[in-house]
Amino acid sequence: MQFPEDLLQRARRVRLFLCDVDGVLTEVNVTMGGGVESKTFNIRDGLGLRLLQQEAGIRVGWISARPSDATSMRAQDLKVDFVHQSSMPKVEAISNLLKETGVAWDEILYMGDDVVDLGVLKRAGLAAAPSDAIPEARALAHFIAPSPGGRGAVREATELVLKAQGHWDRILTKFTS
Amino acid sequence: MQFPEDLLQRARRVRLFLCDVDGVLTEVNVTMGGGVESKTFNIRDGLGLRLLQQEAGIRVGWISARPSDATSMRAQDLKVDFVHQSSMPKVEAISNLLKETGVAWDEILYMGDDVVDLGVLKRAGLAAAPSDAIPEARALAHFIAPSPGGRGAVREATELVLKAQGHWDRILTKFTS
Amino acid sequence: MQFPEDLLQRARRVRLFLCDVDGVLTEVNVTMGGGVESKTFNIRDGLGLRLLQQEAGIRVGWISARPSDATSMRAQDLKVDFVHQSSMPKVEAISNLLKETGVAWDEILYMGDDVVDLGVLKRAGLAAAPSDAIPEARALAHFIAPSPGGRGAVREATELVLKAQGHWDRILTKFTS
Amino acid sequence: MQFPEDLLQRARRVRLFLCDVDGVLTEVNVTMGGGVESKTFNIRDGLGLRLLQQEAGIRVGWISARPSDATSMRAQDLKVDFVHQSSMPKVEAISNLLKETGVAWDEILYMGDDVVDLGVLKRAGLAAAPSDAIPEARALAHFIAPSPGGRGAVREATELVLKAQGHWDRILTKFTS
Repeated sequence: MQFPEDLLQRARRVRLFLCDVDGVLTEVNVTMGGGVESKTFNIRDGLGLRLLQQEAGIRVGWISARPSDATSMRAQDLKVDFVHQSSMPKVEAISNLLKETGVAWDEILYMGDDVVDLGVLKRAGLAAAPSDAIPEARALAHFIAPSPGGRGAVREATELVLKAQGHWDRILTKFTS
Repeated sequence: MQFPEDLLQRARRVRLFLCDVDGVLTEVNVTMGGGVESKTFNIRDGLGLRLLQQEAGIRVGWISARPSDATSMRAQDLKVDFVHQSSMPKVEAISNLLKETGVAWDEILYMGDDVVDLGVLKRAGLAAAPSDAIPEARALAHFIAPSPGGRGAVREATELVLKAQGHWDRILTKFTS
Repeated sequence: MQFPEDLLQRARRVRLFLCDVDGVLTEVNVTMGGGVESKTFNIRDGLGLRLLQQEAGIRVGWISARPSDATSMRAQDLKVDFVHQSSMPKVEAISNLLKETGVAWDEILYMGDDVVDLGVLKRAGLAAAPSDAIPEARALAHFIAPSPGGRGAVREATELVLKAQGHWDRILTKFTS
Repeated sequence: MQFPEDLLQRARRVRLFLCDVDGVLTEVNVTMGGGVESKTFNIRDGLGLRLLQQEAGIRVGWISARPSDATSMRAQDLKVDFVHQSSMPKVEAISNLLKETGVAWDEILYMGDDVVDLGVLKRAGLAAAPSDAIPEARALAHFIAPSPGGRGAVREATELVLKAQGHWDRILTKFTS
């Protein structure tokens, strides 16, 4: 994937990679059965997030309005740095996180797909949306991923940051050798 | 999404939003395993239904011919107002519901996808079908959603009602601020 | 769906509706987790099979090479008349079934998708395959369903038989009234 | 499927069929729920691997960086000869396996889809990738399967080997008779 220069410039400033869960890390759905809620996550998204942490030193956070054990389990699996799951408005939740971490709004990438994400997309230094986000989310996004949520959208955003910050070629060389 | 004026007119009268479950709120399938039945629901459908209730004061009901714990769990999660799961013919089940609630047939939206929905689609003030409904259901529908069941069809029907009744722009402003 | 006359003629003779499970009633996949195997079935396939039994008096059988509790659970749910799950060659299993029931090879419809189905497809009066069956199965099929396995292929085959035997219009009238 | 002669030549040398799990044998995703991780495998891939073992005497191995009970369960179901699940670099894991079995790098087929597979793809006598592998994996592949991971990519690779080594027509005859 090639990215335009203005997008790369925004991606160079990113110090914190945040995203919504349902419809971004998953395919907009949730499974119910036997009293248990299940969610399906993308493996390549997961590897992209781990590379961000391990190869670029960028912290990762997930911001969801719906508390879910499935989300917690996957977040633990991937050692996600910040997991926020509550009905608190997302702008408020992220404001608190930015104060704690000393990161500014224009130093975050945020990917979201629905109306509850609009306020954050308006404020984020790099606003991103999966290809199947609602039109109002895509209208606010600096980067619309080629893939839909749960099918690689997050991975594509991680590659944007890794390439912008000069890590991608080094990663490829390391794994190909 | 833009809607034609005659459809908006029908949607202005809607006081009760009813839909089938399998093939409308789900992708026409059911999963069996370990003695448990699971179903997969769409997250954006869920938010659309909550917005109908909270922002437009419209009650929501699900009418299924197949009793299922998975459906009950998701309905509880979304605080669905009426859940009917039995083999009673759907026309009869909804007639009873309309008597209880004092709502008329031409004040309901009903979305269905298969032969068991045809009688209700014929009577509903606003008959709706997902894009992958059987041809006989689509033939009776005033609104054929762009998306298939379980992939956003219900969400699209909720936006039709929210826009027709003047709530959508207000919702966007609220969440973007 | 419209069907050519020679296909309708074959479908008029059908007294027993048989199909493979994996890749025909499901989307060619199986889910493993927590020591449990799960399978995902199509709801409209299920309704089509029930209509065959209840409206046309045609018995239904599932023939699988892989024993699975998920298959048994769904078969019980749908009151499937015959369920055969073993590694016995399918030609032999169906020969036994035909002897028991007094039905001839040219009075069965069989839908299959892979190499283990080829022998039965060669013998069945009406050989059918989902759209995504292997080429060798499609080459033997009198009817290639427009849909893939698990996405409506079986439903389409049930409608072929219901229409050929003059039940479909009656069913539509019954459910629309 | 027809294959070019240079690809058939590579496939004639294959004595060991190795593949990655996530994104190759599955659709790049993993499901979390109730503290359990689930994965979805393709039935036709499974039959292809069994035919390799039973009809061509070729051993099969799965090489994954993520230990998972779901993978172990499916591997046992299919009697996979070698299952390696650890964070050890894959080149090292496979080098060890080749030493144990006396097979050379140019006698293996390996199918992989992501950066962690690049080192092995560079070394394998027949490097293969599903259609939806990352571009860097596809660039190293001698064979890019027409289908994506979890949707038949592995089956297509097994048919390449079975055809190259002269088993496919015999298998078809056996199952059609």
